[in-house]
Amino acid sequence: MTSNMRRLDVIRNHLSSKFPTMPFDDTLEKYRQRTPSFNKDSLFAIYMGSHHKLIRMLRESSKNSPLINHTAYTFGSREDKHQQIYRIVGEIYTKAPLTYEQDLQDPTKKLSILQALCEFDIASGTRCIVHMSLYIDTIQNLGTAKHRTRIDRAYKLLDYGSFAMTELGHGSNVAGLEVIANYDKKTREFIINSPTKTSAKWWIGAVGKTANMSLIIDGDNKGVHVFLIQIRDFDTHEACKGVILGDCGEKNELNGIDNGFIIFNNYRVPYDCLLDKYSMINEEGKYKSPIKNKQKRLGIMLAGLLRGRFAVSSASEISLRNALTIALRFGAIRKQFGEPEKSILDYQTHRTRLIPHFCRMFAIRSGLHYLLSYLRTNSILFYKDPECEELNELHAILSVFKSLASTYAFNGIQECRESTGGHGYSAHSGLARLRGTADVLMTWEGDNTVLVQQTSKYILKQIQRLLKGAKNTSTTLQFVRLDYEISLWPINSLQDLTTENIIKVYQGYINCIAKQTMQKLQENIQKYDNTTDVWNNSQSSYAQTLASVYGEFLYYQEMVIMCKSIANNDRSLASIIMKIPELYVIDCWERRQRVYVDLGCKAENCAFLRDRHIELCNEIGNWVLPIIETLASCDNFIGSVYGYTDGQAYNRLIEAVEKEQGVYEKPTWLSDIRNVRKAASS
Amino acid sequence: MTSNMRRLDVIRNHLSSKFPTMPFDDTLEKYRQRTPSFNKDSLFAIYMGSHHKLIRMLRESSKNSPLINHTAYTFGSREDKHQQIYRIVGEIYTKAPLTYEQDLQDPTKKLSILQALCEFDIASGTRCIVHMSLYIDTIQNLGTAKHRTRIDRAYKLLDYGSFAMTELGHGSNVAGLEVIANYDKKTREFIINSPTKTSAKWWIGAVGKTANMSLIIDGDNKGVHVFLIQIRDFDTHEACKGVILGDCGEKNELNGIDNGFIIFNNYRVPYDCLLDKYSMINEEGKYKSPIKNKQKRLGIMLAGLLRGRFAVSSASEISLRNALTIALRFGAIRKQFGEPEKSILDYQTHRTRLIPHFCRMFAIRSGLHYLLSYLRTNSILFYKDPECEELNELHAILSVFKSLASTYAFNGIQECRESTGGHGYSAHSGLARLRGTADVLMTWEGDNTVLVQQTSKYILKQIQRLLKGAKNTSTTLQFVRLDYEISLWPINSLQDLTTENIIKVYQGYINCIAKQTMQKLQENIQKYDNTTDVWNNSQSSYAQTLASVYGEFLYYQEMVIMCKSIANNDRSLASIIMKIPELYVIDCWERRQRVYVDLGCKAENCAFLRDRHIELCNEIGNWVLPIIETLASCDNFIGSVYGYTDGQAYNRLIEAVEKEQGVYEKPTWLSDIRNVRKAASS
Repeated sequence: MTSNMRRLDVIRNHLSSKFPTMPFDDTLEKYRQRTPSFNKDSLFAIYMGSHHKLIRMLRESSKNSPLINHTAYTFGSREDKHQQIYRIVGEIYTKAPLTYEQDLQDPTKKLSILQALCEFDIASGTRCIVHMSLYIDTIQNLGTAKHRTRIDRAYKLLDYGSFAMTELGHGSNVAGLEVIANYDKKTREFIINSPTKTSAKWWIGAVGKTANMSLIIDGDNKGVHVFLIQIRDFDTHEACKGVILGDCGEKNELNGIDNGFIIFNNYRVPYDCLLDKYSMINEEGKYKSPIKNKQKRLGIMLAGLLRGRFAVSSASEISLRNALTIALRFGAIRKQFGEPEKSILDYQTHRTRLIPHFCRMFAIRSGLHYLLSYLRTNSILFYKDPECEELNELHAILSVFKSLASTYAFNGIQECRESTGGHGYSAHSGLARLRGTADVLMTWEGDNTVLVQQTSKYILKQIQRLLKGAKNTSTTLQFVRLDYEISLWPINSLQDLTTENIIKVYQGYINCIAKQTMQKLQENIQKYDNTTDVWNNSQSSYAQTLASVYGEFLYYQEMVIMCKSIANNDRSLASIIMKIPELYVIDCWERRQRVYVDLGCKAENCAFLRDRHIELCNEIGNWVLPIIETLASCDNFIGSVYGYTDGQAYNRLIEAVEKEQGVYEKPTWLSDIRNVRKAASS
Repeated sequence: MTSNMRRLDVIRNHLSSKFPTMPFDDTLEKYRQRTPSFNKDSLFAIYMGSHHKLIRMLRESSKNSPLINHTAYTFGSREDKHQQIYRIVGEIYTKAPLTYEQDLQDPTKKLSILQALCEFDIASGTRCIVHMSLYIDTIQNLGTAKHRTRIDRAYKLLDYGSFAMTELGHGSNVAGLEVIANYDKKTREFIINSPTKTSAKWWIGAVGKTANMSLIIDGDNKGVHVFLIQIRDFDTHEACKGVILGDCGEKNELNGIDNGFIIFNNYRVPYDCLLDKYSMINEEGKYKSPIKNKQKRLGIMLAGLLRGRFAVSSASEISLRNALTIALRFGAIRKQFGEPEKSILDYQTHRTRLIPHFCRMFAIRSGLHYLLSYLRTNSILFYKDPECEELNELHAILSVFKSLASTYAFNGIQECRESTGGHGYSAHSGLARLRGTADVLMTWEGDNTVLVQQTSKYILKQIQRLLKGAKNTSTTLQFVRLDYEISLWPINSLQDLTTENIIKVYQGYINCIAKQTMQKLQENIQKYDNTTDVWNNSQSSYAQTLASVYGEFLYYQEMVIMCKSIANNDRSLASIIMKIPELYVIDCWERRQRVYVDLGCKAENCAFLRDRHIELCNEIGNWVLPIIETLASCDNFIGSVYGYTDGQAYNRLIEAVEKEQGVYEKPTWLSDIRNVRKAASS
């Protein structure tokens, strides 16, 4: 929209408003102009990665779509939301269709399509990924040739799939699932039952209203198995006989997803429903599996969750980016105190609260690049050897990235909400919606608290290898030593603040906490008589911290790579972009100052880092608006009156409010006012 | 309800359910029995304070009220919510009516009535306090004899008042308000106008639908003034001529409050509408005020906000308590991992995440006791001398308590949400509602970031006094010294962990950060040429931290007093209750380990405190369920399927979900599924 057209638009809205008119507010435009220009295309391409053109195309082609409408979404019923989100999935999917072969060639493209969907709402991304990844990937991983037709049908959306693992009574403890599949040797069928109330499959995406197929994860006495079954009739859409399907009801957010429940009542399915690559029953009725260890088999059964966790990192970055776009634009527009009044984004307290989250957004994105490149390189290997070391390492990294990314997103969005003051409390800000969606990212696809244990276990296993004299097999942990000695704290001035020194600190820090954790485990071996208790009582402040610090370290290294690439492509940005990973690290340290204590950083050197933190927030703050705007999605995807490109926050808000129902009407419950008056005054 | 009746209730619900039946779940009852018994009445009385009987009476008399119904509240329209909350206010108010005289005698009773309302939802508390405190207190503070009749009418709810300060464009910066009241000497009237769009009064509680009166705060060239004006006709409920009233629309939560906007268009009101105790215009048209300083006058004009900030602390404690009741009961009921499966509340990671928030709840409550006793002792003095030292100190403490309490509440509720996993994502958990309401507490009644500056300014002023050789006038800051020297870190073992040593650490810590902040201010005087910039650039990590640490210190001291009183009244609780303030403090230190760095605590002593933190979480965890249940509100006030006293979490959830609309129905948008299928497969 040109500036003139925008002005016309503003005038038009005023005609029906009861508010005084307001001239076109050019505060945001003026704020933008304060930053030197830079190469926006190059920044966009590097930040978004190899599918940046696809992302741009999907945004552009939907920026005027009537479906991409947050007002409708906010005020619609749950049923309306289901429909709107389903239509959006259909729209985006038909714009960027995929085939099985294409996906095998580049397993990262699917995740880029999901990004466009998540830029509107994670509900749309989720409705797509449950089908496209949890469902399809699992068939691909665990199925055999006979299941191939189901994959093709799924790509054509003829089958719409779901992934029914979680039950009412069990989430993280997958081994405790209660649904039972009994094998009937005579008919070569499985009889599936939900024996208890708590065994009802629960929260299953797409089951409430959409899916006609489902993967059922059961927990019979051979361990966990996956069955590919039909749950609804393809034509009538009725639940199959023996299957009860329902909707899980109102949620905190994400009501566009039709999460549902499934109850089985002697549901008979043919043998071929078992995904039998790693577990089969032969004609004689004998159970066989190439993987003898139940625990390992469980791990392989869940490998289909891999891209789901990628998607969580991606969704985290997107929701944080949307929130920052809103909060930073508002921070420029909103003026308070001073003569003339200053943009609140120009205050120290505002920059120190928002800029660190902006850096974290870069962290998540950099980590995602790392994961995607790892996946691209190794996906064929993973498929062939699900027990390979590379996959173990990926799981370890993916787990902590998923946990950090979702936590960063939630906390960052909340900071955005708080930083917009009372305005952020209007539903039209979109911030509570973003917060509510990011919230679940910390829980699903592996609860963060439980999930990071995979990471710490992986790190500690490397140490155990060293203890046994074996080789450390990790590509990311080669610096781990049994005899690591903490050296002098190396960062005492600006010259010391180098990538090398930061890496040195992290390597010392990780070694230090690993050692503390090993000691805690040793202590607990004396205290408890089983390994589970030993492990569970070494989590808080030990194994958990170990995992987080390792994640931070990897993020930092990937940020340096991404930011260097940005700097190399743009001389203007080169002056600022490397400060983003620097601030990210100092911010990590400042929030949990244990690194200073454990590594012997003296009070005066902490003071230097404390002031550097503030300084960096201020310097990056001078660039933050045009950088976030280069990466930001379109107005209709973001859906906030405060986050519009045109910067007309107050006008947009009033326009939205005046369109709501009954704004100027008397209460329908006026008689209550009169009744209470009477009762209280008599 | 007896246990047998509960069992019957469970069976009845099953008759209409499609789920397998479930025997009565006695997990919660068994969990309760693990803790030694203690005197619950005594704990309740001390924790709730002097009006504990009133609180109990209001709970008891409403525990079967059909109005106290969260399902209706969750699924109602905004209009329904307005009505329900208004009715609740009416119900509670008529059960515990108040007169002006009673309030003067004991200014804390009003706040106790509000508590009962907030136990259902902060919306009901707010709809009451805006009228009962912001409105009435301000008339009382700033009005003169002629305004007395308005106070009486307000107590009888004949007038329903509002407090119109915030505008669309200005919140924290009260001096920047745009509404203008011009004095017309001839008619002895004020002409009130909203000259711009951003001057619309915004977010004004009760203005949307309810209020017929309002206090208008304007910002003309004599500074900020307060006018008591009518906004709606008493009989017809139409907006007065010259006044436009509307509803501010959908919010993130608290939709039971009818926040509204006001636009003035040459609205003429008689002179007597000016609350003229501290500013008047005489018959000759001359302006007079006994307080010459504009800034000071502003402070006095806003004194009516005092009890509003008390209410924020109170609402914070209540919403956190409700959330903890839900999360702790669920933590006992929910079992995961182990053979037999263990309650998740028995895991270290679960206790270390929840128990510190339970201690913070005690902190907020203890602080509230302190504030209330301060208010009870000094309220007459405040009324007589609004510039007295005691009021300054109260403002300083109130500000940081308001900020800490609301932040604790939000973060604690969120931890409760996360700790309940996917179940916490159901709207029937009530946790998102609690989070959404607590969220605004950080913003309204003074944005936390801005508000704590009052506290740090107060502390630094005491130091400036000392620098000038004057006396330190604060009762809470007598330990502040210009020549304070940090002594050796005193806590190196369990024996060292005494109240005396903790106080010693805090006194050192506050002196240390005060000194750092003074140095930062000195540095900034060289850098910036005006005091505002000097001050604004000394906030992050300096003045802000100073205020927080001071608040923590006061909280700790008050917790010790309250917990000692509990211990003195109950030998059983005496073994555990003093650990609550101890954990509170260690948790504060562990979260921001700067105290260790600044006060020279060595790594090995930190390790001791780190382990003590975990140990205390575990020990308090053994007592936490019966303690929180002693303080918990009734089931219908809390409104969570997971938080019921009977512990039937799964049954309650399914009952709630099956009652929702269209749970078992096919989608109304089935044709969309067919259309997308066709489009994607062609």
